[in-house]
Amino acid sequence: MISFSEALSIVIANSTRAMPTETVPLVLAAGRVLANSVVATENIPPMPNSAMDGYAIHAEDVTTASVDMPVALQVIGESAAGSPFPGVVGRGQAARIMTGGILPEGANGVIEVEATTETDTTVLVRRAIRLWESVRAAGEDIQEGAEVIPAGKRLTAADVGVLASLGIVNVPVRLKPIVGLLATGNELVEPFRTPSLGQIRNSSLPALYALCNSFGAEPIDLGIAGDDRDDLLESIEQGLRYDLLVTTGGVSAGEYDLVQEVLPELGVSIQFHQVNIRPGKPVMFGVYDVADQRTLVFGLPGNPVSTVVTFQQFVLPAMRTMLGMTEQPMHMAARLTSPIKKADSKRHFIRGIFSTDETGQLAVATTGTQSSGALSSVSKANCLIILPENSGFHESGDSVTIEFL
Amino acid sequence: MISFSEALSIVIANSTRAMPTETVPLVLAAGRVLANSVVATENIPPMPNSAMDGYAIHAEDVTTASVDMPVALQVIGESAAGSPFPGVVGRGQAARIMTGGILPEGANGVIEVEATTETDTTVLVRRAIRLWESVRAAGEDIQEGAEVIPAGKRLTAADVGVLASLGIVNVPVRLKPIVGLLATGNELVEPFRTPSLGQIRNSSLPALYALCNSFGAEPIDLGIAGDDRDDLLESIEQGLRYDLLVTTGGVSAGEYDLVQEVLPELGVSIQFHQVNIRPGKPVMFGVYDVADQRTLVFGLPGNPVSTVVTFQQFVLPAMRTMLGMTEQPMHMAARLTSPIKKADSKRHFIRGIFSTDETGQLAVATTGTQSSGALSSVSKANCLIILPENSGFHESGDSVTIEFL
Repeated sequence: MISFSEALSIVIANSTRAMPTETVPLVLAAGRVLANSVVATENIPPMPNSAMDGYAIHAEDVTTASVDMPVALQVIGESAAGSPFPGVVGRGQAARIMTGGILPEGANGVIEVEATTETDTTVLVRRAIRLWESVRAAGEDIQEGAEVIPAGKRLTAADVGVLASLGIVNVPVRLKPIVGLLATGNELVEPFRTPSLGQIRNSSLPALYALCNSFGAEPIDLGIAGDDRDDLLESIEQGLRYDLLVTTGGVSAGEYDLVQEVLPELGVSIQFHQVNIRPGKPVMFGVYDVADQRTLVFGLPGNPVSTVVTFQQFVLPAMRTMLGMTEQPMHMAARLTSPIKKADSKRHFIRGIFSTDETGQLAVATTGTQSSGALSSVSKANCLIILPENSGFHESGDSVTIEFL
Repeated sequence: MISFSEALSIVIANSTRAMPTETVPLVLAAGRVLANSVVATENIPPMPNSAMDGYAIHAEDVTTASVDMPVALQVIGESAAGSPFPGVVGRGQAARIMTGGILPEGANGVIEVEATTETDTTVLVRRAIRLWESVRAAGEDIQEGAEVIPAGKRLTAADVGVLASLGIVNVPVRLKPIVGLLATGNELVEPFRTPSLGQIRNSSLPALYALCNSFGAEPIDLGIAGDDRDDLLESIEQGLRYDLLVTTGGVSAGEYDLVQEVLPELGVSIQFHQVNIRPGKPVMFGVYDVADQRTLVFGLPGNPVSTVVTFQQFVLPAMRTMLGMTEQPMHMAARLTSPIKKADSKRHFIRGIFSTDETGQLAVATTGTQSSGALSSVSKANCLIILPENSGFHESGDSVTIEFL
């Protein structure tokens, strides 16, 4: 049985073949992983412009201006967003300017409309301004030549806005990995069926399907294969056409666990089986590498919590690597609100709920039952508490590592 | 000008008409908001079952068992997942059992296969077990009659698994709100066009479109209306057919701001205009209520950062209320890593990046430039730092409130 970090290294080392690139319209880019860094080919904003509605003026003209002693300037035109003022603002002059309007040549600051009074062709300015006050410099948001979004970033709504501002409307992203999902076990029935005595509804596959979608992968539901050899062979052969094949069940020590028998027969080279973790110890990982097809194969345990935890700890890191993602799951330290006894030398993943107090101290509590069948505990959790192999009794107030879900 | 909390109360008070309910297949339920609480109609697991591969036995039979002095039991059958053992395990007897297999009548514990040796019809047990050891009780995960998922929860992957385990494959959820998105401003061009002097590409609408999608609303892109009255009238009339209409630009003090003029003409009752916040002061909110149609109308400022911040602070809370959502944005306390000077009495929303140290202390830094044009700062941020109205200079080490993005 290998350690968690060894197992993770093996998964990562086998996930380095990058997903190919495709180009998608900007409107479909959010949530996708950027394939190439975006370097700005222009300044944003392209020209200095006004942050306020007001008047573009010379700061030097109003140094003495006050409410009691306003300074009068000659209004010579206006610069609205989209219709710049074509002339030059000279000393003693002002141009009306709207938010976003380009600062006319000559002007070196903007006085907001609220501090002025306009009459005929004259504006009275009632306060002094700093040089370049209320002016957004060219390139203030984005400078030409700067790397704006790094390759491997999962694009957020704000990133989409940044791309739009640069005119990048066809966005190079990594193809979504296609993930075959296959449940095994004679006891499982589709969720819409009424289970007979001893049967249970398959809950892992619907959960994994949703996890794939929310991560940004493309799940393919291969359904349930009973503990029948031929069924299983056919299902797995189909799954070996995808980027990843994830099975649930059939990897523990029981004699009916056929998955571990069938995979090698089909050419899957098993890299590890059993990892020193809880829940999820029986997790298996293999690689299918024939001609142009390479499939990462994960045999996850059948207990729903084990399934979800091992998916998060092994399958997601594989996909992040295949996508060249910069983003990693967020790990933070938090103080335990109640003690946890850990009797073995496994790495534990415990469902937790975190919060902070008014001083910014993170605290975390467990969700209660940690049975590996208790999917409802995952539903309540907002983080995993990670207890390392070498730790034993954790007292209330001890600092532990949590991973945000 | 009203305060942030007054403005938010007005928005919430006008958002109480709940979105209608629809029923979606389980596979489409993740990310949707549950309309009715789910109460378990059965126990999960339905019957006591084994957490291990091993033997179902009487705990009393093996109290003296050890490696040196194993106890021999008669193997009378087996209970595999999906094929329960139909008989009774008597004293001195054992039934082979697989993980997930139903505990046969009579047995009151499971010994894992690793602590046993089977020969012919006998199994040698090498250690004592506790009563009900390695047995998952009926209802251990979910008890019949318990509320499993509250109404108003946004369904996660784990929730989908819980629903599947209960056989709830048609899920009552709230309809997604339909949000019309309309940009205004003569200076704006579609992102795929080459801007002329004084023009800029529209970046707010693509960002809002992505925000709507990631929130779980249905955005409708109404495009750009120039500062032309008739254009604007037509676009807004169209938008008033949706659940929400969100405009960008056209709400500040400038004379070309037609949005504030046109909305009342079309029957929109303005509830507030200008809120004591930064960025986003010019934000406007109104309600259109004619016959069966009710549309919440948000006039957001045109600067991209102001647009995004006011969308998060006003439009999302409205939609959360319409959806009856229990989830609120996560607010936490964090210590500032550098001072922030706040010269006015507005409520500030500052783009920040948070982290924790090894003791679990949350810290937060600003992303640098806070210009309301700087969408790139939103792209870098993972939180908003919220500075309340009555605060002034914030020193390094001070505790501030952050909102996760």
